[in-house]
Amino acid sequence: MLIGKVSGSLWATRKNEKLNGLKFLLVDIEEKNQYRQTLVAADNAGAGFGDLVLVTTGSSARIALDGADIPVDATIVGIIDSVEQTK
Amino acid sequence: MLIGKVSGSLWATRKNEKLNGLKFLLVDIEEKNQYRQTLVAADNAGAGFGDLVLVTTGSSARIALDGADIPVDATIVGIIDSVEQTK
Amino acid sequence: MLIGKVSGSLWATRKNEKLNGLKFLLVDIEEKNQYRQTLVAADNAGAGFGDLVLVTTGSSARIALDGADIPVDATIVGIIDSVEQTK
Amino acid sequence: MLIGKVSGSLWATRKNEKLNGLKFLLVDIEEKNQYRQTLVAADNAGAGFGDLVLVTTGSSARIALDGADIPVDATIVGIIDSVEQTK
Amino acid sequence: MLIGKVSGSLWATRKNEKLNGLKFLLVDIEEKNQYRQTLVAADNAGAGFGDLVLVTTGSSARIALDGADIPVDATIVGIIDSVEQTK
Repeated sequence: MLIGKVSGSLWATRKNEKLNGLKFLLVDIEEKNQYRQTLVAADNAGAGFGDLVLVTTGSSARIALDGADIPVDATIVGIIDSVEQTK
Repeated sequence: MLIGKVSGSLWATRKNEKLNGLKFLLVDIEEKNQYRQTLVAADNAGAGFGDLVLVTTGSSARIALDGADIPVDATIVGIIDSVEQTK
Repeated sequence: MLIGKVSGSLWATRKNEKLNGLKFLLVDIEEKNQYRQTLVAADNAGAGFGDLVLVTTGSSARIALDGADIPVDATIVGIIDSVEQTK
Repeated sequence: MLIGKVSGSLWATRKNEKLNGLKFLLVDIEEKNQYRQTLVAADNAGAGFGDLVLVTTGSSARIALDGADIPVDATIVGIIDSVEQTK
Repeated sequence: MLIGKVSGSLWATRKNEKLNGLKFLLVDIEEKNQYRQTLVAADNAGAGFGDLVLVTTGSSARIALDGADIPVDATIVGIIDSVEQTK
């Protein structure tokens, strides 16, 4: 999984109908204190702007949503309270 | 999912027959205001040149097309109306 | 999918028997007019040296070969006649 | 699989319920003596801080946990005793 | 698939039991005459130190081992005799 910070949201009225009802958030994935890439992730954890989140990717993103036919490849599965890391 | 901008299209007469009838668009994936890579994505949202789109990758690209046996690995699943992002 | 140029081929006599009979081509994946990486892809489109090709990756590479148990992760699914791209 | 060093852990009280009971560790993936990225991996091997570990990614991360519906994309599957490498 | 050179091996006594009996080799993946990353791959082709090998990744790595429940994400599926490449 990847750690990222929620930096925004997006609005798309014309989209695959299986995506209806999902909230999509922009997540900046961190790479050693240097932001690398912004992913769009479905929110499965009630995340908000500025939250540090845990993102799962690939086929597990669908499994997180309990929907085998929802075409997502990244889902927020947790909101991180704290990280303990030795540098 | 990734955010990208539709920058072109491609023409391939000799191709896997399961790809017949699909429209393939070139999508420039953005990485922090610096374009990184051009992907080719099947269009599932009626996108056109210049549109900002949402692209799903991997096995979810097939699921978006409702075709378990269509060999694509990237599909446009939405056209983005607006992005709200805090920098 | 990725766009690449066929730059070579490889020969491997000792290999997984499920790969027998397949042709493997080296494909230089382009990244914004700068070559990035050489992939080895199974050929499903009759490609030859110098051809610009469409490569599908991941589980879709197997689906392109109609062989659920062929252990490939990249397959050429089309030969590109032309690309129209606005820069 | 990737080789990495366990550099920390994280705490997330609000998370997908299928992740309950799992231990998540931060793993610095090494790229030629230069650390590249920190992944979060579920621990399937009893790893601790500073351990050199073997991480499997993608759908195999779920298989390692014997749980087809656990939405993880990286799992520690072994603790490395020694690496023998010719440079 | 990726081309790489076998550069070493690793020893892990504490590991997922489904990995027992497999040989794990370190493979340096080449990126245009510049080594990029060391992967750990299960050996399905009888490879040895210094061999140039073909590595399949993702779910195909499991399929190469005929074991749907073996949690690997990279497997050596061939030993390359020769590569013919036009630069």
